[in-house]
Amino acid sequence: MAQPEILHGLFAPVLTPFRADLSVDVDRWIAFCKKLLLDGCHGLCPFGTTSEANSLGLQERIDMLTQLVESGVPAGQLMPGTGACAIPDAVALTRHAVQLGCGGVLLLPPFYYKGVSDDGIFHSIAEVIERVSDARLRVYLYHIPPVAQVGFSLSLIERLIKAYPQTVVGMKDSSGDWNNQKAILTAFPGFGTFSGSERFFLENLRLGGAGSINAVANVITAPLRQLCDQWQTPEAERLQEEVLVIAKVRGDYAAIPTLKQIVAYLQQDPAWLTLRPPFVQLTDDQAEAVINRLKQAQIFAKA
Amino acid sequence: MAQPEILHGLFAPVLTPFRADLSVDVDRWIAFCKKLLLDGCHGLCPFGTTSEANSLGLQERIDMLTQLVESGVPAGQLMPGTGACAIPDAVALTRHAVQLGCGGVLLLPPFYYKGVSDDGIFHSIAEVIERVSDARLRVYLYHIPPVAQVGFSLSLIERLIKAYPQTVVGMKDSSGDWNNQKAILTAFPGFGTFSGSERFFLENLRLGGAGSINAVANVITAPLRQLCDQWQTPEAERLQEEVLVIAKVRGDYAAIPTLKQIVAYLQQDPAWLTLRPPFVQLTDDQAEAVINRLKQAQIFAKA
Repeated sequence: MAQPEILHGLFAPVLTPFRADLSVDVDRWIAFCKKLLLDGCHGLCPFGTTSEANSLGLQERIDMLTQLVESGVPAGQLMPGTGACAIPDAVALTRHAVQLGCGGVLLLPPFYYKGVSDDGIFHSIAEVIERVSDARLRVYLYHIPPVAQVGFSLSLIERLIKAYPQTVVGMKDSSGDWNNQKAILTAFPGFGTFSGSERFFLENLRLGGAGSINAVANVITAPLRQLCDQWQTPEAERLQEEVLVIAKVRGDYAAIPTLKQIVAYLQQDPAWLTLRPPFVQLTDDQAEAVINRLKQAQIFAKA
Repeated sequence: MAQPEILHGLFAPVLTPFRADLSVDVDRWIAFCKKLLLDGCHGLCPFGTTSEANSLGLQERIDMLTQLVESGVPAGQLMPGTGACAIPDAVALTRHAVQLGCGGVLLLPPFYYKGVSDDGIFHSIAEVIERVSDARLRVYLYHIPPVAQVGFSLSLIERLIKAYPQTVVGMKDSSGDWNNQKAILTAFPGFGTFSGSERFFLENLRLGGAGSINAVANVITAPLRQLCDQWQTPEAERLQEEVLVIAKVRGDYAAIPTLKQIVAYLQQDPAWLTLRPPFVQLTDDQAEAVINRLKQAQIFAKA
């Protein structure tokens, strides 16, 4: 069989805007999705960790994705998060994404129970694939042990690729550990390995990776796209250095509240400040510090 | 206002039987629920951690609970787990349980995002309570940091009790840390504090606790009930010692697969061996060791 086609480039795990009553502001969300594509994203990952996806209800996720595709965003450029603790819920989300024609799905392992075996995770993923049972399905494994606590070891990835070579076509490595990502890139050439951090974007591409799905793509889309386009030029190192700006602006503040603070500032739209619990907004002092650091960042001055 | 009525005694987080195709075997489950009540449970916690609740889909949990109540199990004796990562899902489960007349609900905090603040967890629980908006709702906070990783600090419990004195009426402490449970029992007299471990059952009752919701109630119901009834007699220490038998039988094997192995043996019903991924069955050697240790346990010899 031919190698399955995989997605490449810069993907944003799209932030989710909420109204004051905590309902999803779907119109604002769709407009933001379209802006990210215009600004340079090759595609989008709605319902990533940064999207507060795990604070969205099952039906909300299904309805939002339907509306996004109906709004004209090409489904082929979408890799929605469809993982859930329970197989039936992950199957419902995954089947829906495939039926809409999504280019792939980003699949968390079941994450409630801890200390489970590779064998157990294998069977979880296998059950989702078998139950969706659709040749169009393309699974990107979502490895984010700092949050999910449950992840994909190298031997588990290998087993999944061998069992489902046309389906398990890539992954997002959000371990934050370059050695892990390097080991995956080395062990599985041709596998669609995305860096979950902007820090490893250039190195990922140099080792044949598929690109990056990273939170800061919500706020510095163009510079990330430039890095993605020019990684083989002499500019690459400078561009890589440039995209580290948001990490510096953020400092040690909570990632998602900080990103929403930045979007609210950049778009002059305070609606973006709203988060669903368990997240809370930055304090006033923190917000001020973020905005001050942002104003001093050259990357925004020249924008 | 009068003190709200709280649940007391021995509650089992009921194991969930699956068919070979991994669908829930609802008839076998309902029969098992009724057996546990006959054997001495004061009530049941369907959809606890031990129930593989987080491997059950949202709709499965709703349908199962409806069928359980329709089968004649008194809803007032039920404290189903209704927690979920997302507020809308937790609201749907909680509202359904209240509308069925359940005596309480066992509410996990949102557990995907880690390192969240007490303030964020407070607002998560508050949103569920406000949205359900039903005077009949009785919330038992489910504190199980070894699994959920997110939990309820003493100051958070205090804040929730003060904000919702008629609603937040108790908790299950599955921290495994007696000092934590003792601190709760001491700080909040009259609060319905259940021990999540059989190890602390007697001490919980001595300090005015509400009882115990523990996994081994699935397999040694009668001895646990005896301890619950006779905790003020000279037999108490011996009875407390006796209920530690399952911990010895289990050793260091995975808790839920071991419990299902024991039920399959006690009921001579191999259907109980089936688990949903990410759990896997004990190996043959482990299963044999469990059964051998079980056969040697006096508590079963005399049964």
